[in-house]
Amino acid sequence: MRAQADLDTHPDMSAALEHLLQAGGKRVRPTVVLLAGNMLGADRDKLVTLGAAVEMLHTATLVHDDLIDSALLRRGMPTLNSKWSPAATVLTGDFLFACAARLASEINNVELMKKFAETLATIVNGELTQLFAAHGVISRQNYYSRIYAKTASLFEMCGSSAAMIATDDESVLAALKAYGYEAGMAFQIVDDVLDFSGEQQIVGKPLGSDLLQGLVTLPAIYYAEAHPGDPDVKLLTQGRWQDESRMLQLVTSIRRSDAIQLALGEAAGHIERALEALSQFPISVEREALADLARYIIDRRI
Amino acid sequence: MRAQADLDTHPDMSAALEHLLQAGGKRVRPTVVLLAGNMLGADRDKLVTLGAAVEMLHTATLVHDDLIDSALLRRGMPTLNSKWSPAATVLTGDFLFACAARLASEINNVELMKKFAETLATIVNGELTQLFAAHGVISRQNYYSRIYAKTASLFEMCGSSAAMIATDDESVLAALKAYGYEAGMAFQIVDDVLDFSGEQQIVGKPLGSDLLQGLVTLPAIYYAEAHPGDPDVKLLTQGRWQDESRMLQLVTSIRRSDAIQLALGEAAGHIERALEALSQFPISVEREALADLARYIIDRRI
Repeated sequence: MRAQADLDTHPDMSAALEHLLQAGGKRVRPTVVLLAGNMLGADRDKLVTLGAAVEMLHTATLVHDDLIDSALLRRGMPTLNSKWSPAATVLTGDFLFACAARLASEINNVELMKKFAETLATIVNGELTQLFAAHGVISRQNYYSRIYAKTASLFEMCGSSAAMIATDDESVLAALKAYGYEAGMAFQIVDDVLDFSGEQQIVGKPLGSDLLQGLVTLPAIYYAEAHPGDPDVKLLTQGRWQDESRMLQLVTSIRRSDAIQLALGEAAGHIERALEALSQFPISVEREALADLARYIIDRRI
Repeated sequence: MRAQADLDTHPDMSAALEHLLQAGGKRVRPTVVLLAGNMLGADRDKLVTLGAAVEMLHTATLVHDDLIDSALLRRGMPTLNSKWSPAATVLTGDFLFACAARLASEINNVELMKKFAETLATIVNGELTQLFAAHGVISRQNYYSRIYAKTASLFEMCGSSAAMIATDDESVLAALKAYGYEAGMAFQIVDDVLDFSGEQQIVGKPLGSDLLQGLVTLPAIYYAEAHPGDPDVKLLTQGRWQDESRMLQLVTSIRRSDAIQLALGEAAGHIERALEALSQFPISVEREALADLARYIIDRRI
C-alpha cells in the first residue's frame, strides 16, 4: 500500500500509527463490510479495500475527537493527543482521512465514493453539533440525530457500500442499509449505556464522562423523563454540568434506576429490526454471522 | 448546496466560514480550473463544482496549517484559530475536507476522484514532513519536495483534473498537468520570497516568519550556498533558529544579498516552462488568460 511507503520517511508518524493499531478496537465496521459483501458474492479485493477505508475513516474521526475532548484514554490505552502535540495529532487524523479517501477511490465506484464523502460530511457535522449546540440539552430528537451522525451513518454506509460492490438491486441495497443503520444505532446506545454501567477497567475510559461534559445520552434521558424534579437533573438542564460531584451523584442515581434497562431495551429493538432486514436473504454462513454480530452488539461489555 | 443547508443549524459555524470567505484570497486555483477546462470545452457545471472542491480543499489545509503553526494572521486577517478554540478549528477544517470530497465525487469521474484523494494525501504528507523533519535543514531536494507537496501538487491537480473533465487525450492531460506543476512551483517560490522581501502590510503576515520557525526556503538556500561561513547560517544549521534576533539579522542579510533575485529567477524558469506547456494549444482567450495568470504569479506582491 502506498500509504505505507509514504510513512517510511516519518518514523514518528509510523510510531503514532503503530500506537493506534495496537490500541486495537473491535473492527466491527470492516467485519460488517466483509460479511455483507461476501454474502452477496462481491469482489473480495474491493471488499478488503472498502473495509480498510472504513476503518481508517473511523480511526481518523476518533483521533480528532479525542483531541477535541482532550480525552486521555481510549480502549484503555493513552490517546494520541495525550502523548503528542496537537499539531501531530491533527495531521495524523488528516493523513488517515486522506488514506481512507484514496482507498475508497480505488474501488472505482462513483456512487460508493459519493456515499463515502457524504458520510464523512454527516459525521463531521454531527461533531460540530455536539461541540456547539448539544450540551445540557435533554432531547430525544437531539440524541437520535447525534448518534445517527456519530455512529449509525458509518454503519449504514458499511452495509450499503458493501452491497453496492455486488449489486444494484434496490431491495438488497435497502436491506443492508437498514441492517447497518439499526446495528449502528444499537451500537451507540450500548456505548452510551456502558459509559454509565460499564466496568471502568474493561471499558477503558473513566465512567460518567459523557455527563461530565454535559452530553446527555439515552440513559440520562430516560432517568430525566421519570424524575423531572431531581435537583441534579435540574442542574444539568441549567447548564451546570461542570459541578462534578453533583454529576457523579446523578450518574449513581441513573445506575440505580431502570433507565439502563430501558435504554438497553431500545437498543434491543434496533437489533430486532436489524435481524428482520437480514431475513430476506437465504440462509448462509455470512447471514448467520451478521445476525450473531448484531446480537453481540447488545451483549458486549466493551 | 447541501453543505449550506447543513450549516443553518450552526450559527457559530456559519460565522467561521463567513470569516474564511471574507478573508478572501486570490482564488488562483479555481481560476486555473475554469480557464483550463473552458479552453478544452469541458462541461461548465462540472468545472464550477471542481473549482469549488479545489478551493475548499485548499482552505481546509490552510485552516489546519494555521492551527498547527499557531499563526495569528493570514491575508492580513485574524486566523480562525486566533479567534476559535482548537476544537472548532479542527472540525471546521474537517468539515471543509468533507465538503470538498463530496463536491469532487459529484463530478462522477473515478480517475478524477483518485487524483483528488492522492493529492490530499500528498499535501498532508508534506505537512507531516515539515512538522517532523524539515527544520533547520538546508537542502534543495528537501525544499523542492516540500513545495511540491505543499503547493504544486494541488496546482498540478487543477490542471490535470480540469482536463480530465474534457478529454482523455494523454498529450492534453500531460500539458495541463505540466502547466499546473510549473505554475505551482513558481507560486510557492514567490510566496517564500515574499516572506523575505514583501511589504508586511501587503503580505498580511509578519516577515521572516519561515526562518523563525526553522523553515529554510529558497532565498535562504541561495544565501547559505554563497555564504557558508556566515555565523547566522551556522546557527541555523545547528538547529538554533529560536534565537530570534540572530534570525532577524539573517533575514536582513538575505534581503540585502542577490539571493532574492536568484530565487525569483528560478521561479521565472518555471513560468517559462508553464508557458511552453500552453504552446501546443491553439490561440484562444483562455490560453492567453492562463499565460497572463502564470506571469502574474511572478509579478505579484501578495
